[in-house]
Amino acid sequence: MKCSFNKSDILNGINIVSKAVPVRTTMTILECILITADQERICLTANDMELGIETEVTGFVETPGCLAIDAKLFSEIIRKLPESLVTIDADEDDHVEIRCEKSVFHISGKDGVEFPALPQISKDRSISLSQFTLKEMIRQTIFSIAQSDSNKMMNGECLEVQGDHVRLTSLDGHRISLRSVMLGQAFQDEKVIIPGKTLSEVSKILTGDQDSEVSLYFTSNTVLFAFDQTIVVSRLVEGEYFRIDQMMTTDYEIKLQVSKKEMLECLERSLLLVRENDKKPLILDIRDDEMNLSMNSSIGALQESIPIQKKGPDLMIAFNPRFMLDALRVIDEETVTLYMINSKAPCFIRDEEGSYIYLILPVNFSTAR
Amino acid sequence: MKCSFNKSDILNGINIVSKAVPVRTTMTILECILITADQERICLTANDMELGIETEVTGFVETPGCLAIDAKLFSEIIRKLPESLVTIDADEDDHVEIRCEKSVFHISGKDGVEFPALPQISKDRSISLSQFTLKEMIRQTIFSIAQSDSNKMMNGECLEVQGDHVRLTSLDGHRISLRSVMLGQAFQDEKVIIPGKTLSEVSKILTGDQDSEVSLYFTSNTVLFAFDQTIVVSRLVEGEYFRIDQMMTTDYEIKLQVSKKEMLECLERSLLLVRENDKKPLILDIRDDEMNLSMNSSIGALQESIPIQKKGPDLMIAFNPRFMLDALRVIDEETVTLYMINSKAPCFIRDEEGSYIYLILPVNFSTAR
Repeated sequence: MKCSFNKSDILNGINIVSKAVPVRTTMTILECILITADQERICLTANDMELGIETEVTGFVETPGCLAIDAKLFSEIIRKLPESLVTIDADEDDHVEIRCEKSVFHISGKDGVEFPALPQISKDRSISLSQFTLKEMIRQTIFSIAQSDSNKMMNGECLEVQGDHVRLTSLDGHRISLRSVMLGQAFQDEKVIIPGKTLSEVSKILTGDQDSEVSLYFTSNTVLFAFDQTIVVSRLVEGEYFRIDQMMTTDYEIKLQVSKKEMLECLERSLLLVRENDKKPLILDIRDDEMNLSMNSSIGALQESIPIQKKGPDLMIAFNPRFMLDALRVIDEETVTLYMINSKAPCFIRDEEGSYIYLILPVNFSTAR
Repeated sequence: MKCSFNKSDILNGINIVSKAVPVRTTMTILECILITADQERICLTANDMELGIETEVTGFVETPGCLAIDAKLFSEIIRKLPESLVTIDADEDDHVEIRCEKSVFHISGKDGVEFPALPQISKDRSISLSQFTLKEMIRQTIFSIAQSDSNKMMNGECLEVQGDHVRLTSLDGHRISLRSVMLGQAFQDEKVIIPGKTLSEVSKILTGDQDSEVSLYFTSNTVLFAFDQTIVVSRLVEGEYFRIDQMMTTDYEIKLQVSKKEMLECLERSLLLVRENDKKPLILDIRDDEMNLSMNSSIGALQESIPIQKKGPDLMIAFNPRFMLDALRVIDEETVTLYMINSKAPCFIRDEEGSYIYLILPVNFSTAR
């Protein structure tokens, strides 16, 4: 195989597919990036067997072929080359020469035939939306997937299509994050659970452009994201997702509006008094036009009051400040609305249109002091 | 003690003195920042017993006194407060209230009297130079102090004053870095060894301003740096420094000039093939108007050629590319001049005026392949 690229083109391709190179693996071939060059196109591929990424790179093919090169070394070498034409030339024994101006690297490659191919996905079940929308939906929900491996379903997010609506939901047993967006047209209904890692890597590669589209194709056990010159293929999590709608009451006793910035900064300050992995509650004493927030820990104490607009009775309720903070951080509005029933029932942070809902369970604060 | 500050003033002071707070210590009082407030001024102090920093902070004293607060918590709290007036109020039992707008923190302080005072330094032996010059001299030599603790002297740098010249030297057994600068006036001769950590922390605090001065005061076992509102006091390393001048020959057989950028980039590329802690030599094959550089390792091989201007015979010589790279990185000139004698003798990188000299020992490359 012999082909040439502009350094910036090949580097861009490497940066995209590298996200599917596993950090640890027993199959050394997976630590490689596969280059496939035929007369029509040049592709880079990486695959950790759960997640695979393939991207097309502009370049000139002199001799078609395929070749696998250690991803880390390949990426480092290309990054350090001058901004010029890069030629990659591999002989039959997979000895690789990488040449750029007066630099010549010789490294060992691997036979590209050993590299596991990405699965072929049929394209009859699909949706399309803007890259911006998908990137935002992921950012606004990914933080509340469960971190432990005990429940695979909680490590993923549920993506549901109903007519012209798409909804992305994550939950970890203490909170639920939900974003819902209207699509430009109606699609066939879908309900799949996508691994959190897949969504997180996809969101890093998406340019977030309002005018560029991303298409999702579904089979019973895989999802494929296609956008720009790239496809990302991932396994789905198997199983029936939690029944979210049953938990999403719109009843409330207390509705309060507060400045997001003021509350966010107070939450950040309260966390200074909580050691990592500690679960100290932040107590909210909600009365009339003021919310008093207090945190007590072995490190110290914080009291603070924030002006609010409230409908309904006074209430004393406590939360894990981290969970409140995570939700407020991804809300774009300057004023947020909190809905509560009593000190034992979940608090909802949502807008009028239901485009976002953050459910956070309160914590018992009789045990707090 | 009770006093008030603008958040930005107290935060700036904390950031300065924090550099002398030890990461690990058995004396918990040293993990604190000392606040000393009398009618005239407010000072913050930190002290790890080797290095002490004191800085004056603008503020208003309501009740004079002194108080020690855990540096990490203090810094985190102040950083997260609104940009407003911060009031610190401590009672006789060192319970501390930190108040800013509607936030009130309560934390425990420590009795300031327990905090070890900085040594008093007599001010009869001194030099002055611009902050910019000192900061640059440190940056340009600090990288070649020894990292291991086996020789205290190699962990420090030798600062020598001779008339109106100041010279800063570091060495680690494989290389010597030397910067020399002319001062605006003559001072009393000095020769001291300053710990590398002190110089590194001082250089972080120096603004690097051309027009601001820094004064150094010497005693037999301490040095004090005074600049802006800050003083840094440090122990000196005891002993007689290595006889540098004996090693600094100006004889040479080969003089070659090369583009710093081209050589630097080639050195960076060659290091991609060297694993951390590995000592693979980069072989320089110097002939006529070209230098061929080659690196061979278990990872791969690199060949590269760079145009040069040479006087003297051809030469084959090898170096640890890291040492070459460190020196070239801190030279500002676009073209550097290398002086060599043979493949066993040190290479000198220096300018005509002797304002910088980097000596690098070659490595044996008969064992290289």
